[in-house]
Amino acid sequence: MADVITSEYRLAVVPGLTRFVATVLERVGIAPKDAAIVADVLVAADLRGIESHGVARLESYYVSRLRGGLMVPHPTVTTVRETPTSILVDAGNGLGHPVAKRTMETVLAKAEETGSAFGAVRNSNHYGIAGYYAMLALERDMIGIASTNTVRYGAPTYGRDVLLGTNPLAFAIPAQHEPAFVLDFATTTVPRGKIEVYNRKNKQLNPGWAIDAQGRETLDPQTALTGALLPLGGYGVEHGGHKGYGLGLLVEILCGVLAGGKFGLDLPLPSDGPQPGAISHFFAAFKIDGFRDPAQFKADMDVELRSFKDSQKAAGQERIYVAGEIEYEKALYNREHGVPVHVKVWDGLQKLAGELDIPFDIAR
Amino acid sequence: MADVITSEYRLAVVPGLTRFVATVLERVGIAPKDAAIVADVLVAADLRGIESHGVARLESYYVSRLRGGLMVPHPTVTTVRETPTSILVDAGNGLGHPVAKRTMETVLAKAEETGSAFGAVRNSNHYGIAGYYAMLALERDMIGIASTNTVRYGAPTYGRDVLLGTNPLAFAIPAQHEPAFVLDFATTTVPRGKIEVYNRKNKQLNPGWAIDAQGRETLDPQTALTGALLPLGGYGVEHGGHKGYGLGLLVEILCGVLAGGKFGLDLPLPSDGPQPGAISHFFAAFKIDGFRDPAQFKADMDVELRSFKDSQKAAGQERIYVAGEIEYEKALYNREHGVPVHVKVWDGLQKLAGELDIPFDIAR
Repeated sequence: MADVITSEYRLAVVPGLTRFVATVLERVGIAPKDAAIVADVLVAADLRGIESHGVARLESYYVSRLRGGLMVPHPTVTTVRETPTSILVDAGNGLGHPVAKRTMETVLAKAEETGSAFGAVRNSNHYGIAGYYAMLALERDMIGIASTNTVRYGAPTYGRDVLLGTNPLAFAIPAQHEPAFVLDFATTTVPRGKIEVYNRKNKQLNPGWAIDAQGRETLDPQTALTGALLPLGGYGVEHGGHKGYGLGLLVEILCGVLAGGKFGLDLPLPSDGPQPGAISHFFAAFKIDGFRDPAQFKADMDVELRSFKDSQKAAGQERIYVAGEIEYEKALYNREHGVPVHVKVWDGLQKLAGELDIPFDIAR
Repeated sequence: MADVITSEYRLAVVPGLTRFVATVLERVGIAPKDAAIVADVLVAADLRGIESHGVARLESYYVSRLRGGLMVPHPTVTTVRETPTSILVDAGNGLGHPVAKRTMETVLAKAEETGSAFGAVRNSNHYGIAGYYAMLALERDMIGIASTNTVRYGAPTYGRDVLLGTNPLAFAIPAQHEPAFVLDFATTTVPRGKIEVYNRKNKQLNPGWAIDAQGRETLDPQTALTGALLPLGGYGVEHGGHKGYGLGLLVEILCGVLAGGKFGLDLPLPSDGPQPGAISHFFAAFKIDGFRDPAQFKADMDVELRSFKDSQKAAGQERIYVAGEIEYEKALYNREHGVPVHVKVWDGLQKLAGELDIPFDIAR
């Protein structure tokens, strides 16, 4: 994995980077307890190799929205409805991470009591990686689920209006010695950021990624940026695109509609620019011991995951992964060797440190 | 939809067809209450246009296994573990449909009491369409989830061993005037039956469907039949194949591992021929009123679903569907005009009627 540490990246230490992110957020008005949660979620993304959802967003998304008055630093968070197995929270247009973590913790506490519980949050903002919240279930021997809707980027099967977010779904299931099964995926084939990268590199897209403004599949990144992303499975139904569209709409419903938040045409488009808290989240957890002894279950999980990993490789391939394994290994490696931060992001953080007069001591 | 009623199909009436299927099952030793459930699930599939999971399987799958002693007509069904929010059932190698329906009904009754519940069944057999069980939640103003593992047909991303079933996932969410959102999909791009059809027609496969025995993508149906199906998203990671693989493995875990049933390498391959009850199922349900007033939620569902259906169509396309809508319309049409049954299936049923000395009065 040393390949990611090129001259384009510098290495940060986890405690220093986490402290720095939290301090920045405190300086722009976030309560220390909330800032610590956001910092932990953002650094967790970088540790796991998901740069797009890590500290790269600190200034460009979170700080700029707080400074611009689009997000509330001390939101009034209210419980809208609550039962022994469910909770609906209004985030009051605050940062997504603190309300998401606390709501998932409430869901886990309820599931501890009752066996299973569900939660939703509305009027919230981008909460980082969905997998973070699903993974909170792992140490409790539960199965965790987390999801969120997003700004709109994608079109439905046979459509051309931009209607669907990247709408990720995450599931976390513990094993014994093997890394946990952590499936965390966008329901579009690729994120919009990938189209932008291909556009900068003037590189042709792969089939199944995007359509033009008339709804025709396109391999041209420039054209795709005026069109929409395709759902997982690609254009039409021949490759299963209707399944990805269905999953994206499922997330839209479980988040926006179930939470009584914004949904459908009321969700912002990227071209609308930054908008106040239009995002909703969904969470669920249930206890493994409602079905089996958790120790036996986790031992069987090891057998199951190994049977995939140890199976014969396709011609020319060296390794078969199970969901979450790449991210787990990157996190282990990066925790020891330092978190790679792209030089452009690094420079941005340093500039922010200067502006806010904060010590910049993140280097390894 | 009149296009499906060609000379290859004959039309059956719902009550006659249902009664006939139930009578056949009773004659081969199934209790009347169980036979009625199986008949209802099979006819529901044909009504919804999912022929592959309908009465076509009556003789070829269910009756032949009962006659061959591979499935137990009067199984000992036991509750292995039960809590207020969960139930694990051992199906005793009986028919899948009765135990699946009763377990989902138990899950719904538990969710009625507690707000949310989960269930699993092991040592069971093919249970028809997963959507049938998820849809049982609809009239109770709940969200229903159903899944099942299957015989192995597919390979993991970058693998070539046949390890994964078609492993369907189904979600059902009620609306007010619009048909319910019913997403019911295999986590492989296509079912194996589709490869067989293309092979008979000597037609090239689409990319993303299958690999050869060495794990290389193939468009040749004959070669694919000696290889494996690809997960939703296709070969490798460029089109999101790792996401479909992750979903397939998720189903494997939620069914086989969580239920303490067969999983991984212990699941049968098609080449093993018919095997006794190796299949497990998974169910979940939760109440909408744990979050919102169900009437308001369903009114919002109408708005949400219509915003997709009424959006602009891609060039050359006439209609955008939401999940479950095609099947809903087919069921409405077929209930009025008769259920199309392929002449080969029809002739098989007629032969079975003769063998078992049962009146064959299914014709419209």
